[in-house]
Amino acid sequence: MQARCPRGFVEWFDAFSEIGSTGDGGVDRMEATPANGAARRQLVAWLRQTGLEVRVDRMGNIFGIAELAGPDAPLVMAGSHIDSQPFGGCYDGAYGVIAALAAVAELKARFAGSEGAAKANLAVVAWTGEEGARFRTFLGSAAYVGRSDPDVELDRPDKDGVTAREALAAIGFLGKDAPPLFPSAYVELHVECGEMLETAGARLGIFRRWWGAHKIDIRFLGETSHTGPTPMARRRDALFAAARIIAVVRSMADEAPPLALHTSVAKLIVEPNSQNAVPSAATLSVELRSANGDLIADCYRKLFEAIEAAAAEARVGYEIVRDDLRIPGTFSPELGAIAESVAASMGVKPVSADTIAGHDALMMSEVCPALMLTVPSRAGLCHHPDEWSDPADLQLGAAWLTGVLEELITR
Amino acid sequence: MQARCPRGFVEWFDAFSEIGSTGDGGVDRMEATPANGAARRQLVAWLRQTGLEVRVDRMGNIFGIAELAGPDAPLVMAGSHIDSQPFGGCYDGAYGVIAALAAVAELKARFAGSEGAAKANLAVVAWTGEEGARFRTFLGSAAYVGRSDPDVELDRPDKDGVTAREALAAIGFLGKDAPPLFPSAYVELHVECGEMLETAGARLGIFRRWWGAHKIDIRFLGETSHTGPTPMARRRDALFAAARIIAVVRSMADEAPPLALHTSVAKLIVEPNSQNAVPSAATLSVELRSANGDLIADCYRKLFEAIEAAAAEARVGYEIVRDDLRIPGTFSPELGAIAESVAASMGVKPVSADTIAGHDALMMSEVCPALMLTVPSRAGLCHHPDEWSDPADLQLGAAWLTGVLEELITR
Repeated sequence: MQARCPRGFVEWFDAFSEIGSTGDGGVDRMEATPANGAARRQLVAWLRQTGLEVRVDRMGNIFGIAELAGPDAPLVMAGSHIDSQPFGGCYDGAYGVIAALAAVAELKARFAGSEGAAKANLAVVAWTGEEGARFRTFLGSAAYVGRSDPDVELDRPDKDGVTAREALAAIGFLGKDAPPLFPSAYVELHVECGEMLETAGARLGIFRRWWGAHKIDIRFLGETSHTGPTPMARRRDALFAAARIIAVVRSMADEAPPLALHTSVAKLIVEPNSQNAVPSAATLSVELRSANGDLIADCYRKLFEAIEAAAAEARVGYEIVRDDLRIPGTFSPELGAIAESVAASMGVKPVSADTIAGHDALMMSEVCPALMLTVPSRAGLCHHPDEWSDPADLQLGAAWLTGVLEELITR
Repeated sequence: MQARCPRGFVEWFDAFSEIGSTGDGGVDRMEATPANGAARRQLVAWLRQTGLEVRVDRMGNIFGIAELAGPDAPLVMAGSHIDSQPFGGCYDGAYGVIAALAAVAELKARFAGSEGAAKANLAVVAWTGEEGARFRTFLGSAAYVGRSDPDVELDRPDKDGVTAREALAAIGFLGKDAPPLFPSAYVELHVECGEMLETAGARLGIFRRWWGAHKIDIRFLGETSHTGPTPMARRRDALFAAARIIAVVRSMADEAPPLALHTSVAKLIVEPNSQNAVPSAATLSVELRSANGDLIADCYRKLFEAIEAAAAEARVGYEIVRDDLRIPGTFSPELGAIAESVAASMGVKPVSADTIAGHDALMMSEVCPALMLTVPSRAGLCHHPDEWSDPADLQLGAAWLTGVLEELITR
């Protein structure tokens, strides 16, 4: 087993990081924006140059298939996503797609003259809209595994009223191809977006568990009136209720031990959002994350107590706009053992880590054994232009992915 | 003195309320939007039909002048504004402009054949952007009285980056006419937007005082990162700091006696406002209102203590984006006495009231004696589609305004 970084990875990754660049090391490639369209066109060009069969399905998911073992052979799939947060970094997602492209290109070339050596085919995948910054999280992978209704999701609008269907059509990626059948294994390489590897001084990691996450969008409904003369006791201020919830959600995490519970309210939309008009509506997105499902359930109960109290205090109503629970889980131990063994052959010992962030691999683990490989993120930072990983680690990770995929198609 | 409503008022007001109608009794005529442009064109058409000299100045302020006493005579000005909140009512502002139009039309006709009877000229005015829903509050009247720099204000962008200059030009109301010189008296008739009249069972009111208001926009500056893996202790969450301030600002008012202090945070802009990205910035608009200037000063001091504490707790910085203090004040007692006397001649006794909301008359009181006449608002409601005043009260108020203007040009 060789530990060499697959050919093309460094050049492709550097070139890809320029697409949608915000000039400060970061990128803005929110799903189905012009910059995201440019990144997709570049990826498709490289997939085609590599001789892969390109398919774009109705969700805009891009697949590049290398048929190494005949049409009826099982499929091993590797990839991630290329959309970003509005002011995101160039590693989150894109690293795993470009590394998969380079690994599959390398293996395709290596197995070209060896009929029968490969027992499975390979596919690179770039999932649509993993970030949820514009549409729902896991837009492409959730639809692929049957966890969401494609038509319903495609018709949901972004904050400007543009649907996913319209946005994908506008960049030419509302595809018509059938996606490949479910693979026999899915491998996703991703920068850690956490600091377990850095803390452990490790260069490679295997995500063994994923944290659970309960995501609840609450819309408080008050009544607008003049912020001047309206008596305080008569006001029905939706933003005031939202502020109470933001404080409660934060206190839950502050009162828990480190790394037991992460909480956030990162999105808040106020209506009419005019300085002289008491807010008639405030919609906030709450996240409760933990590896401990019972702790999430306990916080969820407390959240609803707090919502009731805040609504009563602010004299407003509320509705739950979204309530998505991702229960904590584990990735395939068998694939994890293979990844350990490949790393050992490269002379590296990966650490076991949790992923706190969600990834497309969580969706894929519902339909096949899934594996997540990871390399360190400096200071654990993601979703920020300063997101950074050491090029040497990125190359080591790409080599590891190549080795793991080789093992999976030859075993 | 007759108590008859001036001709044209009812028809004009009803027709005007349809422009920018939101179909629920309210209007959306935010400054320099297409609907606002339509309202402006309608007003100008009526001013011209009435034989008034129309001037539109560089701020888009619209004047309709009736020269009754020769070019060198003093000017008595009456009016208000026709912009609205995004989901506002059809009375706030527009009532005073249409009533002034009808009153001036009536007086112009009445004095047409009586050379020398009028000792002053009359002007109707519709001030640009009183509401501050899109640009600064008192956009037009503050510039007219010299309290703001027209070029600076015209170049300020709205939330979509469109400047006031561009927006006014787009609707054809970036005028070039010189506005009239400062008048010898300014009269503004406005629905109360408060409940003092309703509580007193009065049909007419004279605003004797205006409340002070301290408006402070604070921008908390944190750092974005992934809401999942970022350790809680490492987060720099700007929205969390803003939530603390919203609660503190509310508690100030809740702890004060009724009608002593009104506070609000009605506008909040979060960046990047993505559910998975810790907020890097949160800009909130705080208002502290009271008739008691010392109480406002005390709250202002407490606000800054709270800002420091919230910034420290959330590990964020902050900057003060805006800090506008309007000190409490009183309208002209002489004009108030005239208004009382005119009402008495109509057989009505007006009550004295405070205006808690700001009005263009506050700006005008810096350059001439100013008077505010008011009629009841149902339940004190303004800035809401359900804003409503009794048509009989509106007509009585228009008659009163006509009588007061007649008195002011003949005394």
